[in-house]
Amino acid sequence: MSAEDPKVVWHQHSVQRTSREQLAGHRGCVVWFTGLSGSGKSTIANLVDLQLNQRGVHTFLLDGDNIRHGLCASANLLEPTHGSDFAKRFGLGFGPADREENIRRIGSVAQLFVSAAVVTLTAFVSPYRIDRQRVREWVELHGQQGDFIEVFVDTPLEVCESRDPKGLYKLARQGKIASFTGISDPYEAPEHPEIHLHAGHRPGDELASEVVQWLVQQGIV
Amino acid sequence: MSAEDPKVVWHQHSVQRTSREQLAGHRGCVVWFTGLSGSGKSTIANLVDLQLNQRGVHTFLLDGDNIRHGLCASANLLEPTHGSDFAKRFGLGFGPADREENIRRIGSVAQLFVSAAVVTLTAFVSPYRIDRQRVREWVELHGQQGDFIEVFVDTPLEVCESRDPKGLYKLARQGKIASFTGISDPYEAPEHPEIHLHAGHRPGDELASEVVQWLVQQGIV
Repeated sequence: MSAEDPKVVWHQHSVQRTSREQLAGHRGCVVWFTGLSGSGKSTIANLVDLQLNQRGVHTFLLDGDNIRHGLCASANLLEPTHGSDFAKRFGLGFGPADREENIRRIGSVAQLFVSAAVVTLTAFVSPYRIDRQRVREWVELHGQQGDFIEVFVDTPLEVCESRDPKGLYKLARQGKIASFTGISDPYEAPEHPEIHLHAGHRPGDELASEVVQWLVQQGIV
Repeated sequence: MSAEDPKVVWHQHSVQRTSREQLAGHRGCVVWFTGLSGSGKSTIANLVDLQLNQRGVHTFLLDGDNIRHGLCASANLLEPTHGSDFAKRFGLGFGPADREENIRRIGSVAQLFVSAAVVTLTAFVSPYRIDRQRVREWVELHGQQGDFIEVFVDTPLEVCESRDPKGLYKLARQGKIASFTGISDPYEAPEHPEIHLHAGHRPGDELASEVVQWLVQQGIV
C-alpha cells in the first residue's frame, strides 16, 4: 500500500473508544445534572468533578461558564466578530427553539467527550423532558446503553428563589425576564432519573458524594 | 458554610486545567489539520491519533464522521426530529455563513477538549484563513499561547483530484457541486503553519510520524 498509487484507498486506522477507555482506566459517560436555576446543579457538579479528579478519573464539566460564551454564544456575543446576519441566525437566546438547539449542541458535544473516555458532567437547567430524552437517545445511539446518567437536582422552588444567586428570580417576578423556568416557563422534572438528589437542605459535599458513590457502585469509576 | 443559609454563596471548587493536565501526564492542545479534500488530512490525523494513543497520550479526533451528523448536522438530518423551521435555521450546508459557523462550532469544541487536557486532532478542509485565525485566537484566548498547532497538509490539487476518494472532484468538475474547494471555491493556504507537510507523494505513516516528532520536540507529549 503506498500513497503514490491513487487507486489504493488508504486504510483508516481509527482509535476505538475501547482503546481510549483502556488508557483512561475507566469508561466514558455523561452525568447530566438538571434542575431549576439556583438548585445547586453547578455547585454539585463542580464538587463531583473535584472528587473524581482526586480519584484519578478523567473528567470534564460543561456548564454555562464555558458554553454560553463559545459554542452556544448569544447573538450579542457573535455580532462584533461575525456580523449581524450571522449572529441573528446562529446566536442563541432563551426562546423555545434556542433552548432546543442549546441542549442539542451540548448533547452532541457531551457524546464526543464520552467517546474520548471522559466522565462528562453537564450542568444546565435543561427544563424540557423531550430535549433531555433526545440527548439520552443520541448519546446511547452513538455509544452504548448506560452512557447517559440523569441527575435530578430536586430543590424546592422556594429554596432556589430564596438563594437567587444571580438575582434572576427577582427580575423574573418583576416581569423583566420573559420565559424564566419555574416562574413563567415550566420545568419538566425527570420521571425516571438515574439519580434523584433531594437537594434542598443538604450540603453540597454530601450531595456530590452521593453521585460519586453511585458511579462507584455501578462500576463506572 | 451551609446549604441551609441562602445568604451564603457556595464556594465554587473548580478543577483547573493544570489539575487535568497533571492527571493526563501532558498538556492539552489542538492539532488542526487543514488541506484540500483528498489531501490526506483525515488519514494522517487518524495515524497521529493511533501513534499517540500507543504512546499513552490522551487524544481525540474531530472529523466529518463525528461532527457532520451531530454538532454540525445538515438541515436534512435535523428536520425529522426538530422540524423544518428549526432545521432551516440551525442546519449547516456549504454556503459561506454555514462554513463559518461549522468551523466556529468545531473550534469552540476543540477549545473545550484542550481544557480537558486532551491532545485534540481536527481534520477539516477549513479553507478560509480568517476562520482558522479566529479559532487560533479563541483557543489561545481561553487557554495559552501554543495551544493551537496548525498543520498544513500540502498535497497538490492534481494528486487530490486523482485520488478523489468520494468522487466529489468529478461531480464538482461536472458542475454538480457548487462551491467546491479547489475547483469553484478558493483554498487559502496557511501562511505560517506550525507544521507544513509536503504530503503529495509520501506514505501516511511517515507524515504522521513527522507530526508526532514535532509534538515530542516541543515537549507537548
